[in-house]
Amino acid sequence: MRTLISDIRTCLGEEVSVYGWVHRIRELGKISFILLRDRSGMVQLVLSERPKFPVESVIAASGSVAENEKAPGGLEIQVKQIELIAAAAADLPIPVNQDPEKLSLEAILEHRFISLRNPKILAIFRLQSNILKFFARHLRSESFTEIKSSKLIGTQTEGGTGLFTVDYFGSRVYLAQSPQFYKQAMIASGLEKVFEIGHAYRAEKHETPRHLNEYVSLDVEMAFIESEQELMDLEVRILSSIFKGLIKENQAELETWKAAVPDPEGVDRIPRISHDEAREIISTSGKKKVFEINPEGERVLCEWALKQRGIEAVFVYGYPRKKRPFYTYPLDRRSTMSFDCLFRGLEITTGGRRISEYRMLMDSIDLFGLNPEGLDDYIQIFKYGCPPHGGFAIGLERLTQKILGLANVKEAALFPRDRRRVRP
Amino acid sequence: MRTLISDIRTCLGEEVSVYGWVHRIRELGKISFILLRDRSGMVQLVLSERPKFPVESVIAASGSVAENEKAPGGLEIQVKQIELIAAAAADLPIPVNQDPEKLSLEAILEHRFISLRNPKILAIFRLQSNILKFFARHLRSESFTEIKSSKLIGTQTEGGTGLFTVDYFGSRVYLAQSPQFYKQAMIASGLEKVFEIGHAYRAEKHETPRHLNEYVSLDVEMAFIESEQELMDLEVRILSSIFKGLIKENQAELETWKAAVPDPEGVDRIPRISHDEAREIISTSGKKKVFEINPEGERVLCEWALKQRGIEAVFVYGYPRKKRPFYTYPLDRRSTMSFDCLFRGLEITTGGRRISEYRMLMDSIDLFGLNPEGLDDYIQIFKYGCPPHGGFAIGLERLTQKILGLANVKEAALFPRDRRRVRP
Repeated sequence: MRTLISDIRTCLGEEVSVYGWVHRIRELGKISFILLRDRSGMVQLVLSERPKFPVESVIAASGSVAENEKAPGGLEIQVKQIELIAAAAADLPIPVNQDPEKLSLEAILEHRFISLRNPKILAIFRLQSNILKFFARHLRSESFTEIKSSKLIGTQTEGGTGLFTVDYFGSRVYLAQSPQFYKQAMIASGLEKVFEIGHAYRAEKHETPRHLNEYVSLDVEMAFIESEQELMDLEVRILSSIFKGLIKENQAELETWKAAVPDPEGVDRIPRISHDEAREIISTSGKKKVFEINPEGERVLCEWALKQRGIEAVFVYGYPRKKRPFYTYPLDRRSTMSFDCLFRGLEITTGGRRISEYRMLMDSIDLFGLNPEGLDDYIQIFKYGCPPHGGFAIGLERLTQKILGLANVKEAALFPRDRRRVRP
Repeated sequence: MRTLISDIRTCLGEEVSVYGWVHRIRELGKISFILLRDRSGMVQLVLSERPKFPVESVIAASGSVAENEKAPGGLEIQVKQIELIAAAAADLPIPVNQDPEKLSLEAILEHRFISLRNPKILAIFRLQSNILKFFARHLRSESFTEIKSSKLIGTQTEGGTGLFTVDYFGSRVYLAQSPQFYKQAMIASGLEKVFEIGHAYRAEKHETPRHLNEYVSLDVEMAFIESEQELMDLEVRILSSIFKGLIKENQAELETWKAAVPDPEGVDRIPRISHDEAREIISTSGKKKVFEINPEGERVLCEWALKQRGIEAVFVYGYPRKKRPFYTYPLDRRSTMSFDCLFRGLEITTGGRRISEYRMLMDSIDLFGLNPEGLDDYIQIFKYGCPPHGGFAIGLERLTQKILGLANVKEAALFPRDRRRVRP
């Protein structure tokens, strides 16, 4: 009967069996110490023999639990029996039991199947798993329905740039950049409130610490809204639920990364400023007039928000029409009912109200110089009655990155894809 | 202030505002009746004027709630004010307010954005959303971690047949057929118990009521198992949780389809038979010796299970080695520690114990005539210590199909992809 390492504290003086990976071996005369790692934690094993296997081997050990204030966690297991379950080769390409800060990102990603064994790296994905949980749980608590839409699309829906092409039985199809049209279809279907957790693909060539060619998009869409303000209200509630959940269940992972989430009760303090105000703040800060919000501007705005409101996040609304897709609801000739959420210097969300009126949509398609024929199916949504609606998408890896303070978004993807990397 | 239709029962005699889609219009002299549909239900509106909009238009109406035993649900709203929010065109390509059984599958899928408005069709996806919820919830309750792996793979991992190719910045990559290698990598990483909900792709040309070229795979993998029996135990617990949840929250959808889930307490009665026993049962039933389990055989086995145990499902274990992928753990020279779950005549799950020992894996790669060079990254998982493990995958659309008794698995995909269909 296996005991998880996290449970041995309750077994003082008793005999237990533990299973796990050999994290570290230390030999001291005739005694050896093994630091054993399982999914729940680590414990020191004390042996009166020299282990005949290298680190990372999988073993089972049984013995009695004793207190030892020098041992990690104050406990150790005095081993009576040890069994080698799976021996590791001795030539580990990268060490598992050292601070990953000492490794290059290139080495971490090249040997991804090994680097993920490092507890600090694995902590990223333990926390990410709970972001998925709390995101979905919050939306279900507000009666949203989860959907799964196709990622193979037959038409170049958003203009055709940045799409990967797939050979589909001899014809060309594309990997979806977002579930945008499908979310809207499900609004019109009558579900009214939907969310989707799914992969999104961007065939963009730039290689930056903030871009991935494949990422997980946390998508939300809801009907019967009047402006993008209601969407920001919803995002505040979602972020608050996620932060609250992580504080409750992922304190260990946050501490591992010396990170903290913003106060869940304070998320509603995130300032909301217009695109013009944002440009003004950046211009004043840099003593140079800016016309758009670049990555440096995103950092400036989050610093400004921290000073003003004590939270490193800001909503920017009212983006210019030419900066947003054709389906964005116009506020006037120049600007749109759209918004971004910037968090710790990085855009983690883009959203807005969508055009739901047939005539307005046709005008916008015309204004953007698009061919309505390629948008036939999409247009049908609005031809037959669609309520006002809007939505947004949160990038899972970006949110993970910024919560933990990771330098590069690729660290927050299990198996990141960039221009050069398609393995492992 | 909007009132949801499901809540008006508590507002008898009061004035309410409802929003929704015009499901049906009936004119009777100077009085008109509108059946209004929102995400929560339907209610009859009574008007003293003729509506100037066709069905499927989105409207807001306010008036007082009154009892009327002739009205659907026994209530109606006597409308004082009505507002047209979004007019529908009058030329609906398919009717929304009729039983979809009257439409061909071709028409339903061709006009998918419209057919999804049909309450009976939409019910499929309300229930499916909860399958996702209860699947994840159950696994989290057993300390599984949710992962998101890449769907773009650089090498032909499972032999190269049935893969879609993607043009990735000028080089060829493939859409993943399953997250198999990544699930195994996460077992070896130390998470021990993982699940993934994600798309899987099969470039198979056959056009049958049981195949999709893109589907949602509910994947599970767990460490420290000894045989496939423990995996079946886990699937029993998962199915039981899903059935229990659907009974609690989706009775309306089940009734719409005149469907019922098996007794959640009885899932552990699902018989477990060997592949040889299964062939014997099919041979006896058909009075003809069979050598493999084809779709007709799957139906025979489920009927047999219903007679024997009162549940239309069966686990078949011990599939021949040549019928399973190279990574399947061999039981002996001929058979493997693998299993399928058949439910109501259809295979909904494939799984098994995987090879976790380096030498055994290299031998299997050799036996299957595969090139170990293309499997370099994968082999690394086992070279550095991997515990015994196994897992399985449940097809979301197939499970949905069989729960509701749908004739074709495509009905259980929001936007199904088959050989000819890549839109909408």
